[in-house]
Amino acid sequence: MKLLHFIRDGASRLGIRVAEGAVLDVAEARGALAGDADSAVPASVGEAIEGGPEALAALRALAERAGSAITLREEELVFAPCVPKPGKIVCVGLNYRKHAEETNAPIPQSPILFSKYGNALAAHREDIPLPSAVSDQVDYEAELAIVIGRRAKDVSREEALNYVFGYCNANDLSARDLQLRTSQWLLGKTCDKFAPIGPWLVTADEVGDPNALAISCSVNGEIRQSSNTADMIFHCDEIVSYLSRHMTLEPGDLILTGTPEGVVLGYPADRQVYLQSGDIVTVEIEKLGRLTNKMV
Amino acid sequence: MKLLHFIRDGASRLGIRVAEGAVLDVAEARGALAGDADSAVPASVGEAIEGGPEALAALRALAERAGSAITLREEELVFAPCVPKPGKIVCVGLNYRKHAEETNAPIPQSPILFSKYGNALAAHREDIPLPSAVSDQVDYEAELAIVIGRRAKDVSREEALNYVFGYCNANDLSARDLQLRTSQWLLGKTCDKFAPIGPWLVTADEVGDPNALAISCSVNGEIRQSSNTADMIFHCDEIVSYLSRHMTLEPGDLILTGTPEGVVLGYPADRQVYLQSGDIVTVEIEKLGRLTNKMV
Repeated sequence: MKLLHFIRDGASRLGIRVAEGAVLDVAEARGALAGDADSAVPASVGEAIEGGPEALAALRALAERAGSAITLREEELVFAPCVPKPGKIVCVGLNYRKHAEETNAPIPQSPILFSKYGNALAAHREDIPLPSAVSDQVDYEAELAIVIGRRAKDVSREEALNYVFGYCNANDLSARDLQLRTSQWLLGKTCDKFAPIGPWLVTADEVGDPNALAISCSVNGEIRQSSNTADMIFHCDEIVSYLSRHMTLEPGDLILTGTPEGVVLGYPADRQVYLQSGDIVTVEIEKLGRLTNKMV
Repeated sequence: MKLLHFIRDGASRLGIRVAEGAVLDVAEARGALAGDADSAVPASVGEAIEGGPEALAALRALAERAGSAITLREEELVFAPCVPKPGKIVCVGLNYRKHAEETNAPIPQSPILFSKYGNALAAHREDIPLPSAVSDQVDYEAELAIVIGRRAKDVSREEALNYVFGYCNANDLSARDLQLRTSQWLLGKTCDKFAPIGPWLVTADEVGDPNALAISCSVNGEIRQSSNTADMIFHCDEIVSYLSRHMTLEPGDLILTGTPEGVVLGYPADRQVYLQSGDIVTVEIEKLGRLTNKMV
């Protein structure tokens, strides 16, 4: 199932992408089809995660009963972030071998972790303001994002993916001048709207192996990154397990799993052209759709 | 005013420390003294921050009307974190000159920023579990914490303190082996309960200049850190302004402003004795009370 949030009548609403280009407004469908099972129907992605398998089953049943009669046209929607309020946004750095190489960094022996804050969240098709007063080196980073489904503490690698609710595209936008101003990368990672995610959150059952997905990034239609999540140094199960051994993960936590080679920072110095106002950046991961944002 | 949270009847409740050792239960006082102004009385620190000057005035009026008749004994309270759900926990590294020197780090030219997540929050008198499965180098760091009162974006240094709601003690507990495992410090900073704060949050009007406060840390009664917030390299106004120029700050955001010299990491190698189970660590900052936690 593909879950998303969109804005309607000034409020954020839960949607299910039921078919190509067609989104069911969950609240509307629930109102139109009042029935016994409705008390379990969640009203947000947060409730869907907290509600466990029962909540997902209720959403599936609702979508089946609603059919295609009352869907909205996806192209007309104003999206909101598909995970509205993650308690944590954890990022893994240098997690693709060739990306580590292109930035002249040694291959990490353990996951390199840093973070973004909630101010960085943005949605599919949301404009991203370039922070031009403080940076002129904003770079893209296509990344697979993991969304945690259940509290996870000291979880083994074998069990780790059972704690995952789903996956989505993410763009780990990075102001390189700010990121590298001090030893700690945070400053360049958490400018407002520097973590667009979406368009939707795909439940884990639909994705299968998260480390067998084509991943790419294009700028104005030109492919800049093209790889596969199989090339991660630390795979998703290992990342979740490792994190859970050092901090308690909670439902809704978002984990950005690193980016493959092809970022501007990895270009020869004379060809480093960072993102400009008007640039359209699209992250696309197999099974997860396309996340597109304009820099402004 | 000194605001705090404590657990009563299984729920977190807002308290006002009205006198030495005496805490007013806001909900109880409100129930006992129903009156016209009560609709503005906040039920949590979050509501007190969001409610602005009106909410603070309502709390002050309630405390005056209640007097000392119905206060609780502070020593019997079970504290909860005095800022229950900060949207961000921002930390400034190496922000005291002598601490930078003791760790052989150069004096920073701009604030070094890193973060902790919400899982790290803990309260006054809460036991802190040493993560002994993954670290045997847990260190204390006494720090002044700033709590943001109003949304702040591109705020000048001159205006910055107007955006501060108040201040509290914090202990930026740090697992040095995890912190220094990779280039990014996050892993060693955000183990569960590695950010005890409190006991209470003191409103900015009561604190005055936040860079003129004695600050100390003791372990089992032995003073390990003793300095003054005047020795910060980047003062509180500069930190808030700097942050606001790179990310939007929101009410309730928590900023840990760095620690003075005297941490275990700064000791000669043969005298580095990290925290052990049973150790009692107390952070004390002038005007902000004493934050005490036991390692277990």
